[in-house]
Amino acid sequence: MRGREAETGSPTATDREERILGIIQTARAKRPKFRDARITMSHGAGGKATSSLIEGLLVPAFASPELERLADAGNVDVGDARLAMTTDSFVVRPLRFPGGSIGELAVNGTVNDLAMAGARPVALTLSLILEEGLEADVLAAEVQAIASAATAAGVRIVSGDTKVVERGACDQMYICTTGIGERDPRAVLSPSALRPDDVLLVSGRIGEHGTAIMLARGEFELGADIGSDTRSLWPAVDGLLAAAGPQLRCLRDATRGGVASVLNELARASGVAMLIREAAVPVHPAVAGASEILGIDPMHVANEGVLVAAVAPEGAQAALEALRAAPGGEQAAVIGSVKTDPPGMVLVETAFGGRRVLDQLVGDPLPRIC
Amino acid sequence: MRGREAETGSPTATDREERILGIIQTARAKRPKFRDARITMSHGAGGKATSSLIEGLLVPAFASPELERLADAGNVDVGDARLAMTTDSFVVRPLRFPGGSIGELAVNGTVNDLAMAGARPVALTLSLILEEGLEADVLAAEVQAIASAATAAGVRIVSGDTKVVERGACDQMYICTTGIGERDPRAVLSPSALRPDDVLLVSGRIGEHGTAIMLARGEFELGADIGSDTRSLWPAVDGLLAAAGPQLRCLRDATRGGVASVLNELARASGVAMLIREAAVPVHPAVAGASEILGIDPMHVANEGVLVAAVAPEGAQAALEALRAAPGGEQAAVIGSVKTDPPGMVLVETAFGGRRVLDQLVGDPLPRIC
Repeated sequence: MRGREAETGSPTATDREERILGIIQTARAKRPKFRDARITMSHGAGGKATSSLIEGLLVPAFASPELERLADAGNVDVGDARLAMTTDSFVVRPLRFPGGSIGELAVNGTVNDLAMAGARPVALTLSLILEEGLEADVLAAEVQAIASAATAAGVRIVSGDTKVVERGACDQMYICTTGIGERDPRAVLSPSALRPDDVLLVSGRIGEHGTAIMLARGEFELGADIGSDTRSLWPAVDGLLAAAGPQLRCLRDATRGGVASVLNELARASGVAMLIREAAVPVHPAVAGASEILGIDPMHVANEGVLVAAVAPEGAQAALEALRAAPGGEQAAVIGSVKTDPPGMVLVETAFGGRRVLDQLVGDPLPRIC
Repeated sequence: MRGREAETGSPTATDREERILGIIQTARAKRPKFRDARITMSHGAGGKATSSLIEGLLVPAFASPELERLADAGNVDVGDARLAMTTDSFVVRPLRFPGGSIGELAVNGTVNDLAMAGARPVALTLSLILEEGLEADVLAAEVQAIASAATAAGVRIVSGDTKVVERGACDQMYICTTGIGERDPRAVLSPSALRPDDVLLVSGRIGEHGTAIMLARGEFELGADIGSDTRSLWPAVDGLLAAAGPQLRCLRDATRGGVASVLNELARASGVAMLIREAAVPVHPAVAGASEILGIDPMHVANEGVLVAAVAPEGAQAALEALRAAPGGEQAAVIGSVKTDPPGMVLVETAFGGRRVLDQLVGDPLPRIC
């Protein structure tokens, strides 16, 4: 605990704080258990309940080393081909929102999971669940959005499926996209690879997708002009690999549960602590304002085009420059660094010099955001 | 039209019949258009409306040669790996039924689409859409069913996703599975490869899955003991490839829309006619009975473990033996053959010696069967 002692003031406050952190830490070292009797919205929110469902029920059932890694994509080797494969269902409501739509999200979300695995996206499949009575024009618009996003991301749609369910059963449409990509040999990434002194970066301003969805739902009065950040992150990853490939530890796109969930997952997987400087995190003032009104932290708000990168110190500057050079990356920033203690914990240094624990999301303040 | 003239009686009847067939045939040669203002249940039924949605809206939008093939799986080549990739959403109601459940279906259905492409199934992804309030036990049972079916089919689950939607928004659960497989070099299959005199086989008794679902819904009174035929068809395909690889023209699993839809699609894609001997089609008496009560043809009822194979005449006997040797293949049978005229049409020779046109399904007599 040397690192922290050097940074804190009163030994008494530190002792008490450390006992509390010790308790939290012991609880976290255990694999989450799934003990709920019923599924709640929070199981889909990307926070603690989601982790308990995935790590407590799904991963043990399939006894798959690829699932155990809890990565955004699974590795599959076929012959000489080193592939990554990932799937996502999209149930966002409303279907269209400032800056994007479910179709665009369905392509970029899956492409980004491949990119986070260091894999160049190659092909997608598309499975549509349509509600009886859906207007053909609404469907045609999403099909067009999917086609355009796929072209922009450089992936081909190679297979598809369509199901129709009765009126009232799926809220217009759900889309499941699955992607395969080719793992880039420059990428040696793992959520357990983080080491003390590694540098933590984000590729852009955070919280804009979730905020755009909230505004589109008209759930609170705010005239802000915030659009979703949905975009393919492969160009950013490609740039990172070129600039700092051997120094990259791990990449994660900060979707459900936001940047806070990503940081917590990585801290836990690597058994390290993190210290984030709140003032360094790029947030649009309107996103900060909306979050304050709702009483949530922008670090918990979903993004669809922002990644978190953990980089060895010697690669940090090159990584930052690569992110800034990528489309939409002008606001990329170093937001903090990896520490030794307390393992599994993410601490935030606030603008006023205080520190607080940044936890995973509990419950679901904003369901159906992707 | 020589082939048919030789088989029919009165020249007058033949002339009139041929004029009518000519009209149908011209209509069929055109690509289906999607002109509906709204989605109806029939767009998900696997029949004509589904074809119009897929071929009239989806395939043109994505401008993808792989989709143009309208195969069960798309081909993707990555480096030296010759892959097939396919996706399916499962929305079956009820979740459990005699002989299977949604989880088992979700694995076998996707594995079978790979098998039909002549690809050995390698890996699956799993995307769950869960309804708020779903009982954890119900979920755990399906997770177990998925795990068991994956083990039985020899595939690994390599990546997953979970979304939760509000109560009432998805009827307990929907499952989307996507699979990749390695194309077997022995398989040179295409829906447009059928030639006159090719032999048509089915791998088992037809219509049992759809009938089991009907019985499980209690929609009509019948004490029949019919279970779903859900199973992996890769062992049957592997056997076919070993016994008659070079003679195999095309394989299709006869899911939504039944054997009739498969035959019509192949007849249209290859520009050939088919003559099916009704008496040769293996049907369990209880399935025949249930179909008669409902006024539908067992040839239109869904299967989840039956394939249709088109084989060059010299490979037919070996193919039949291979199918009979595969698990669940005891009832495999030759059901008819490929003819020249009228192109795109499937004719059935009834038990009484008459002939009728066997068309694709129109509308959806049985929604949500997979």
